Amino acid sequence: MEQALERLRALPYEDLGFAKVDHHRALRKGFPEVIFCPGKTAVQIVEIARRLASTGANVLATRAAPEVYKAVRRELPGAEYNAVARAIIIRGTEKLEPAGNIGVISAGTADLPVAEEAALTAELMGGRVNRVYDVGVAGIHRLFDSWDRISKARVLVVVAGMEGALASVVGGMAACPIIAVPTSVGYGAHFQGLASLLTMLNSCAAGVAVVNIDNGFGAGYTAALINRIGLEGHSP
Amino acid sequence: MEQALERLRALPYEDLGFAKVDHHRALRKGFPEVIFCPGKTAVQIVEIARRLASTGANVLATRAAPEVYKAVRRELPGAEYNAVARAIIIRGTEKLEPAGNIGVISAGTADLPVAEEAALTAELMGGRVNRVYDVGVAGIHRLFDSWDRISKARVLVVVAGMEGALASVVGGMAACPIIAVPTSVGYGAHFQGLASLLTMLNSCAAGVAVVNIDNGFGAGYTAALINRIGLEGHSP
Amino acid sequence: MEQALERLRALPYEDLGFAKVDHHRALRKGFPEVIFCPGKTAVQIVEIARRLASTGANVLATRAAPEVYKAVRRELPGAEYNAVARAIIIRGTEKLEPAGNIGVISAGTADLPVAEEAALTAELMGGRVNRVYDVGVAGIHRLFDSWDRISKARVLVVVAGMEGALASVVGGMAACPIIAVPTSVGYGAHFQGLASLLTMLNSCAAGVAVVNIDNGFGAGYTAALINRIGLEGHSP
Amino acid sequence: MEQALERLRALPYEDLGFAKVDHHRALRKGFPEVIFCPGKTAVQIVEIARRLASTGANVLATRAAPEVYKAVRRELPGAEYNAVARAIIIRGTEKLEPAGNIGVISAGTADLPVAEEAALTAELMGGRVNRVYDVGVAGIHRLFDSWDRISKARVLVVVAGMEGALASVVGGMAACPIIAVPTSVGYGAHFQGLASLLTMLNSCAAGVAVVNIDNGFGAGYTAALINRIGLEGHSP
Amino acid sequence: MEQALERLRALPYEDLGFAKVDHHRALRKGFPEVIFCPGKTAVQIVEIARRLASTGANVLATRAAPEVYKAVRRELPGAEYNAVARAIIIRGTEKLEPAGNIGVISAGTADLPVAEEAALTAELMGGRVNRVYDVGVAGIHRLFDSWDRISKARVLVVVAGMEGALASVVGGMAACPIIAVPTSVGYGAHFQGLASLLTMLNSCAAGVAVVNIDNGFGAGYTAALINRIGLEGHSP
Amino acid sequence: MEQALERLRALPYEDLGFAKVDHHRALRKGFPEVIFCPGKTAVQIVEIARRLASTGANVLATRAAPEVYKAVRRELPGAEYNAVARAIIIRGTEKLEPAGNIGVISAGTADLPVAEEAALTAELMGGRVNRVYDVGVAGIHRLFDSWDRISKARVLVVVAGMEGALASVVGGMAACPIIAVPTSVGYGAHFQGLASLLTMLNSCAAGVAVVNIDNGFGAGYTAALINRIGLEGHSP
Amino acid sequence: MEQALERLRALPYEDLGFAKVDHHRALRKGFPEVIFCPGKTAVQIVEIARRLASTGANVLATRAAPEVYKAVRRELPGAEYNAVARAIIIRGTEKLEPAGNIGVISAGTADLPVAEEAALTAELMGGRVNRVYDVGVAGIHRLFDSWDRISKARVLVVVAGMEGALASVVGGMAACPIIAVPTSVGYGAHFQGLASLLTMLNSCAAGVAVVNIDNGFGAGYTAALINRIGLEGHSP
Amino acid sequence: MEQALERLRALPYEDLGFAKVDHHRALRKGFPEVIFCPGKTAVQIVEIARRLASTGANVLATRAAPEVYKAVRRELPGAEYNAVARAIIIRGTEKLEPAGNIGVISAGTADLPVAEEAALTAELMGGRVNRVYDVGVAGIHRLFDSWDRISKARVLVVVAGMEGALASVVGGMAACPIIAVPTSVGYGAHFQGLASLLTMLNSCAAGVAVVNIDNGFGAGYTAALINRIGLEGHSP
Repeated sequence: MEQALERLRALPYEDLGFAKVDHHRALRKGFPEVIFCPGKTAVQIVEIARRLASTGANVLATRAAPEVYKAVRRELPGAEYNAVARAIIIRGTEKLEPAGNIGVISAGTADLPVAEEAALTAELMGGRVNRVYDVGVAGIHRLFDSWDRISKARVLVVVAGMEGALASVVGGMAACPIIAVPTSVGYGAHFQGLASLLTMLNSCAAGVAVVNIDNGFGAGYTAALINRIGLEGHSP
Repeated sequence: MEQALERLRALPYEDLGFAKVDHHRALRKGFPEVIFCPGKTAVQIVEIARRLASTGANVLATRAAPEVYKAVRRELPGAEYNAVARAIIIRGTEKLEPAGNIGVISAGTADLPVAEEAALTAELMGGRVNRVYDVGVAGIHRLFDSWDRISKARVLVVVAGMEGALASVVGGMAACPIIAVPTSVGYGAHFQGLASLLTMLNSCAAGVAVVNIDNGFGAGYTAALINRIGLEGHSP
Repeated sequence: MEQALERLRALPYEDLGFAKVDHHRALRKGFPEVIFCPGKTAVQIVEIARRLASTGANVLATRAAPEVYKAVRRELPGAEYNAVARAIIIRGTEKLEPAGNIGVISAGTADLPVAEEAALTAELMGGRVNRVYDVGVAGIHRLFDSWDRISKARVLVVVAGMEGALASVVGGMAACPIIAVPTSVGYGAHFQGLASLLTMLNSCAAGVAVVNIDNGFGAGYTAALINRIGLEGHSP
Repeated sequence: MEQALERLRALPYEDLGFAKVDHHRALRKGFPEVIFCPGKTAVQIVEIARRLASTGANVLATRAAPEVYKAVRRELPGAEYNAVARAIIIRGTEKLEPAGNIGVISAGTADLPVAEEAALTAELMGGRVNRVYDVGVAGIHRLFDSWDRISKARVLVVVAGMEGALASVVGGMAACPIIAVPTSVGYGAHFQGLASLLTMLNSCAAGVAVVNIDNGFGAGYTAALINRIGLEGHSP
Repeated sequence: MEQALERLRALPYEDLGFAKVDHHRALRKGFPEVIFCPGKTAVQIVEIARRLASTGANVLATRAAPEVYKAVRRELPGAEYNAVARAIIIRGTEKLEPAGNIGVISAGTADLPVAEEAALTAELMGGRVNRVYDVGVAGIHRLFDSWDRISKARVLVVVAGMEGALASVVGGMAACPIIAVPTSVGYGAHFQGLASLLTMLNSCAAGVAVVNIDNGFGAGYTAALINRIGLEGHSP
Repeated sequence: MEQALERLRALPYEDLGFAKVDHHRALRKGFPEVIFCPGKTAVQIVEIARRLASTGANVLATRAAPEVYKAVRRELPGAEYNAVARAIIIRGTEKLEPAGNIGVISAGTADLPVAEEAALTAELMGGRVNRVYDVGVAGIHRLFDSWDRISKARVLVVVAGMEGALASVVGGMAACPIIAVPTSVGYGAHFQGLASLLTMLNSCAAGVAVVNIDNGFGAGYTAALINRIGLEGHSP
Repeated sequence: MEQALERLRALPYEDLGFAKVDHHRALRKGFPEVIFCPGKTAVQIVEIARRLASTGANVLATRAAPEVYKAVRRELPGAEYNAVARAIIIRGTEKLEPAGNIGVISAGTADLPVAEEAALTAELMGGRVNRVYDVGVAGIHRLFDSWDRISKARVLVVVAGMEGALASVVGGMAACPIIAVPTSVGYGAHFQGLASLLTMLNSCAAGVAVVNIDNGFGAGYTAALINRIGLEGHSP
Repeated sequence: MEQALERLRALPYEDLGFAKVDHHRALRKGFPEVIFCPGKTAVQIVEIARRLASTGANVLATRAAPEVYKAVRRELPGAEYNAVARAIIIRGTEKLEPAGNIGVISAGTADLPVAEEAALTAELMGGRVNRVYDVGVAGIHRLFDSWDRISKARVLVVVAGMEGALASVVGGMAACPIIAVPTSVGYGAHFQGLASLLTMLNSCAAGVAVVNIDNGFGAGYTAALINRIGLEGHSP
């Protein structure tokens, strides 16, 4: 066992003391490590971003407060900020042509930050994204009006708070896999997203898989992994 | 205060030792007491039923096991049993003409016992009931096909387990009030009906009020109270 | 299916990018879309309000902070603010004569914001509303003193925090349907309204249906739907 | 510390291997150890009962299945069984004259086993008990009719399932302390007694303290401790 | 029924619009209404306090922020403030001689605000109170050292956060009834007091009844009700 | 709107009274309706199976007890039974060549029924499936030994009970999307699958989406939808 | 990475199809794999036991029903059964002399099965075990009487249901590390062990670590790992 | 019993009114009382620290805000502050040589405060500590690279938020006991640490015991107790 471990040890990562930046991830997963900002200091985030950027890859930092962005931009002037998605992006040297078709559908206006995080992540990973927003089931004809665009997707991300019924309705009609994202939009017996989460986990429509509450990043990432299947130049 | 209480004491009820049968309820609420069977012995149920039946009113006993029905029928030969709804009925001397229009909609085949309990209760309380079953959102065109019948209701009862999305979809389209009944049909993260309950409480469609999990009786009763508004000869 | 969807697409709504304003709702439900403010920016709320107001309908925005009201008033000078209910109202061109009889009963002084949201919503939807406040069961004679007014209602809204027992006590006496609103007033094992919610869902009195914690709007809306049954000029 | 512990060691108890019977408890608490049957084998229960009975004290075994009673009676022929309360009693040599006034009030017929466990325990501990059963808030005049008897109690035990509102209503009227017992009678969002428990813990009426779900024994015991205050010959 | 209600209506209370001050409570329960401040505005609190004070009774307002006290003192200069217990007191014209013996025991320094609220309430209601603080089970000899004082109580209030084991240890030794108060002192899997609450509800020691998390007032009130049993001039 | 609904009504389904069999689903989703057995009577299941089989499609009934299978086989002699997966299969007239590559990985022996349900569903929907069982993290070298086979999958299903850590470990190494299935295998603080569910929803590895507890069917279905992307003759 | 994995693959395990028996575990952890029976068929358990026994190691199967034991004994006649602990043991060829000092303390008679599982596991792993049973805090002098034996332990296992206070009391006095095991013994607001679990996780005494509800095996195993520190011939 | 208690009373502690400082703890447990700051005022913390420091022992105050540190330093100039761990340390007169080997492993950068609290506590109690940070399972080769250092520990502390899988992976490989610390690092269905807590309690790897969420202190303390077993001069 000792010898085997020795080899695994040789995989590339960089030790910053407070963090071990996993440079091997890009090889292993096809995409580099992404920085989840909460609980990290601005100094730590800047340092990790700098190391990742130095490899020429796309860098993505999610749930970044505006102050964090300012700190990053000071060190890395090319950094961009998507205020709705609360995300920092540093574009790498190589650019992937957007391909495939990922639909991102959201139920209400308050779900926008999560939906945008999903869309942005998927785009950064090479997917072509179609946004269809504010089509919740209280006015279901709005969903039907966008059905042409929706029905062409290889994979759909459905973002909804409140009772989260949109995932089931879309799931009952669409032929492609669906990644459902419950949001914490709601109050009272919503319990900070639990209600939407349970709705989506119990969907009577088959083909619906779920990520964590407000996890737009995870949904966009998974959708991008699905979208690149069979796309030339996109597989790892 | 003593004198006031003295008067309230004079209201009619019958003391059986283990139970105090509330004969005043029919006057107060417009419908007599209903027997909820779980936790009561067959002997107790028979005795309460006999006292209620003696007033000539309709008697309803819910969640009654077949054995309980047998015990009741031995004493009260006119008792009927609705096996799907698990309910015992003893029809009273006066018969109310069915009136109004109550729609009872259910999502799946496994929701039938709850839906039937609601329909039966509403009928016994003088409502005319329209049943539309197995129209869950996984095949939403089945719901649309029955829309004509649904849209004419004064009040709708929507019964659904799993993710319970049907209440929101119907709520987004219907103009009348909706009483939603979450059922315990589901598994895993359904938590015995919690998932459907939370869905319905968080409905993004307005005009949806909710009763307890599997409470077909309560939904049918409330719908009947709503249905009789403005109906001649039906108000208390 | 394609053709059917095409027709549904033709229903009127307005796409603002971040929102799709559902102008068809007034036709479908009898009342226009209502703006739930949390999670929306002031800019978005102002824009949606402007579009809804342009149709001449009543506009209601709930859970609106005073800052939001200021932003709305700047654009729409006729906007009013009900500080207790935290609601913005823009009165439409057509005015419905208040009719029917909706009782709004609350248990304690701290429940006032929710009770007022219910009363205001019901009034805006054409109901005549009777307010009976601070009649919780710790001093039950206060409830009895208002019973004359309560007993004449077509439908009752009962608002209560703490243990929420008021809904059951009223439910045991009243002949009309009851919409119960649990509030988050309480502490400790109240779990932000869970205690009142469970109390009301488990009411031993029949005819009680429940809306989400603190959902005064939903209760007022449902009560108004019930209240208008059989009222001339009020049905959709 | 060693010496202090040495003295505590000298307190009387009997080691049966699987159990250490605490004979000192009668001195310390004024009442001997009580046997809670679930999780103990019949053989173990019989043995503990025999040791306790040998001191001449009253013996009480709660939640005892009929089979357990049969096993006990075989060894201890004087043992009695209260089938409703599911309790075994072996009366001791000394008999306390019933004194004071403990009211035991219950909401519904299905709450009887818990109410009887409370009443029986209180009686065995020397209290005079007044039973008032089936006076739930759905027919509140039944409670008022018994108010004379209730209002004379030194302490009240209030037993209720479903939404458990009875504790608050009684608490709003009574001048004495109240021990509230939530029961597991209910279904769905009752969550096996959680709903009644939360109701009682959040009572808006002061002077209400709560014991575990279905814990009739604990309520009866606490009520008896309160009842004996100031009663000659009853204090420890 | 109408006539009976008419009489109950005649009971004294004062309608302030936002509140109905229950002047009858002092007659009914032996103590006047107490003001629970959260959710009420300073203006409302001042007004209610003024009405209660005008009857010459003791006035107690719990969970009062310092700002609220300042507002009250401006109107009612005799008002006192207990900063630890966060309570406002306005002493009435009649003074009850402290009597009986109520022990208030707390586990840790952070539990002091709750323990003081209990002690203060009990004193205001005529009880003589013995405080024993910071005797948690991590250093159990500190409890034993105070046992002489504790063992003489007619009733004990035990206040504890963290795992709340103190209630069981005291309950295993004391001969009098115990009112246990779980506090929200803790973190992580303490879930804001749930851990202490469950501990106390499941106490293996008999004679322990529980009030809501952090409800020092309720415990002091109940203890005072128990303490006054058999005390001359203290019963209602 | 009426005309639009009229068209949707024309979509094919068959009304059996207790069920509306959705024949349109095969067109819409690419796979026919699947029968979830719990809550349905054997008679209902047989009837639905017969109608689905009559179209020549594959029929799948999940969570089927052996008795149900016997009832089905009596009517439909070609029906097969997979006892581990508790599933009934009736093979249709058309046979899809297995294609793509779906890995199904499970953590422990007790997870087999869920893993087999996933594998079976995926196979029936045209996927080629690779099973790798009992490779939980307590002996992680067993997982590494199968890595060659695992790393070639287009999509992975990871099935795990207990703490469900396998999904994260696989997710940290694999380049393809992962559908994680928490199982109810565990006890105590596992809360019937809640522990594994939360683990998987909170995975620190990106690219993991989750289905309901024990929902092998849903995972297999979703994996099959992903697997068929870009496969000729497999898309709908 | 491929080469590293290749080496890990070479670690010894045996593939039975439904299980991969991890023979390397004894080397890695110092003790062989243990069979957790629930969810495995008798056939599977017998087969795994046979493979493990063939290496000459001690075999332990926990939570084994008597039927499972019978099936095992048929194949492996040397198998023993501890009925209280519900465990099957097959003693290996090498015998470790019991050493060190592990105290196993339990609160009540109903906790015996869990306590015995812990004691048995610890003994099988080479520990000398001291059992002290039925010393719950309701009669705390029973604990003090055994303190001499308890205070000499290198590590303590404390097993308790109900409110689980014993762990804190022991933790406040003992100088060695404590492994606390909450049991599911209790009812109502015990929530199948949740109450004891939370108590132990929130212990105010330092040095207490917790295992899953009813997990006597895990506690005994961890205690044995701690006990063998510094013992000659016991470390791996 | 009275005499026994008298002796326990003689154990040394100091009564500050708001706190009873337990000077006997150092004798009993081998380490003095530690100050948990939340819920205590700065004045109280300073006073307790001063009393403890006066005995010449090491003083540790956890979860201390910077303001609290400033207040302490004003009175006790030798006080140090570890800002990452949020801990105040006052080094005593006697210094223990670091001995043994405690590994502290953490999963992510945001888990640092908890990991440092554990490491610091263990060091203060005489342990030699090895830190291995940011080796979460999303990049598992980072863990393997540090395995040499990890595998030499007598006891391991594993700190992880999100899904907390690291504890199981380490537990599957290590031969020593593991104290697992779930952290509140996560969001959504993490429920403030519940997800990591459940993961660790349900670990399929044996030898893992768990402390409260974010309880770095408790883990470090328990690990130090384990580490000192058999170390000369370190046992109490």
